Amino acid sequence: MLCYFNNQFIPLTTAALSVTDLGLQRGYGIFDFIRVANQVPLYIDDHLDRFYHSAEYMRLPVKQSKNELKAIIYELIQKNALSDSGIRILLTGGASPDGYEIIQPNLTIIEQPLSPPPDVVPSGYKLVTYAHQRQLPQVKTTNYLVAVWLQPWVKEQGADDVLYQQNGIVSECPRSNFFIVTKDGLIVTPAKNILNGIIRKQILKLGPLHGMRIEERDVSIEDIRLAKEAFISSSTKRVIPVRQVDDMHFVVSPASLTSKIFELLRDNEPH
Amino acid sequence: MLCYFNNQFIPLTTAALSVTDLGLQRGYGIFDFIRVANQVPLYIDDHLDRFYHSAEYMRLPVKQSKNELKAIIYELIQKNALSDSGIRILLTGGASPDGYEIIQPNLTIIEQPLSPPPDVVPSGYKLVTYAHQRQLPQVKTTNYLVAVWLQPWVKEQGADDVLYQQNGIVSECPRSNFFIVTKDGLIVTPAKNILNGIIRKQILKLGPLHGMRIEERDVSIEDIRLAKEAFISSSTKRVIPVRQVDDMHFVVSPASLTSKIFELLRDNEPH
Repeated sequence: MLCYFNNQFIPLTTAALSVTDLGLQRGYGIFDFIRVANQVPLYIDDHLDRFYHSAEYMRLPVKQSKNELKAIIYELIQKNALSDSGIRILLTGGASPDGYEIIQPNLTIIEQPLSPPPDVVPSGYKLVTYAHQRQLPQVKTTNYLVAVWLQPWVKEQGADDVLYQQNGIVSECPRSNFFIVTKDGLIVTPAKNILNGIIRKQILKLGPLHGMRIEERDVSIEDIRLAKEAFISSSTKRVIPVRQVDDMHFVVSPASLTSKIFELLRDNEPH
Repeated sequence: MLCYFNNQFIPLTTAALSVTDLGLQRGYGIFDFIRVANQVPLYIDDHLDRFYHSAEYMRLPVKQSKNELKAIIYELIQKNALSDSGIRILLTGGASPDGYEIIQPNLTIIEQPLSPPPDVVPSGYKLVTYAHQRQLPQVKTTNYLVAVWLQPWVKEQGADDVLYQQNGIVSECPRSNFFIVTKDGLIVTPAKNILNGIIRKQILKLGPLHGMRIEERDVSIEDIRLAKEAFISSSTKRVIPVRQVDDMHFVVSPASLTSKIFELLRDNEPH
């Protein structure tokens, strides 16, 4: 498997960053992740826009223009010739004289095999809530300290993922956005303190075009308790129904709005 | 300069970790930092105890025993033959099959030149407060995302460092502990949501032996406003007086308790 590293294509197994890189020393880095289906990088413009936004916010200069980066990604996909994969664009702080100042970030683009999501609605997830707020939530940083640390606890709870909340207001899962469907058929997703997911953006765009009502606003634990459905969205998973959040249960049915959203996304995927 | 990497001593310039290491991909890592004075690693047992505590808390297994690690550090100091330096013990998550699960962490020990702190009380720092709470504060993780990100803002404020607060209760600076001295001559330092600094521990031990009264409890912005003195402590800086926190000013004088603490630490330093 080739990756793009230090301005060239080299085997992934040989790509290594100095132990002095701020990405390692200070956890200072951003990334983005693109799902590739049949060699097509899905929503690549949205992902690259977000990547450049993250980079700018964190004051990490990117030498390549958006078009140059796009060309590199297409070339990498062609060289590796995987049908279904994930592309990770990683930008770390680079070497620093005082271990704090940013001089020249390091860009790495990795491609790895990734199974596509199923073509039918997958079975539901169980989520457990946990009091936490991601730092700089609007930026896709490499900080997954709490998410990785919580993994054994999530498994002990028999859960599939964790849903962050703060003072009873939920935000997101570590790698997915969260939605509920109210008893009135209104789709609601948290507006604040979240990462703006690319699939979330698609749902907000496609839903209203197909007669669905969607609102971005605060979602409380009480809102979840009163909801009819819940689901999460992410680039790797598309949409996954939620069958349980803590002690709150939801029925996953083919007639649900969750299933309709899933089908809408599947049928409108670029190809 | 040599470092200890992958069970051997190699030049620091050649020590590099795979771009797939969880330390880079997920910001998952811990470290500790030891100041070396005249080739003596100061408070090495305290630092190693904290390092193993951080490692255990984050479920990062360390293959070496404490005594083995100590022997490696002494050997590194001998090989590099620097008089004054800093030793950084870095433990990152290592390669992971799913980008989440911890299999085998990577241990790196870096030594770099470091000027010793001055032998007389340094001039005071200006601190600016910022609403933030470090994640997993009792663990010395590599997460300095917010600290590094805030640097330009700190400089814009004409400040030397940032003091984190949450709901008006201060905790610590990114790399130092914080203390105030009340009008009654009581030394107070935050007890909760902080990293247990090694110099802080020395102050808590030495102070009372020399007739000082010290308390660990919440410190509010209002407490700072009413205080007579303030100072910070860290392994690299020993003690630095604080002359200003936001709009609150403090007089730094040779007769102050801060100066006495500074001298106590300097005169009791291992050698």
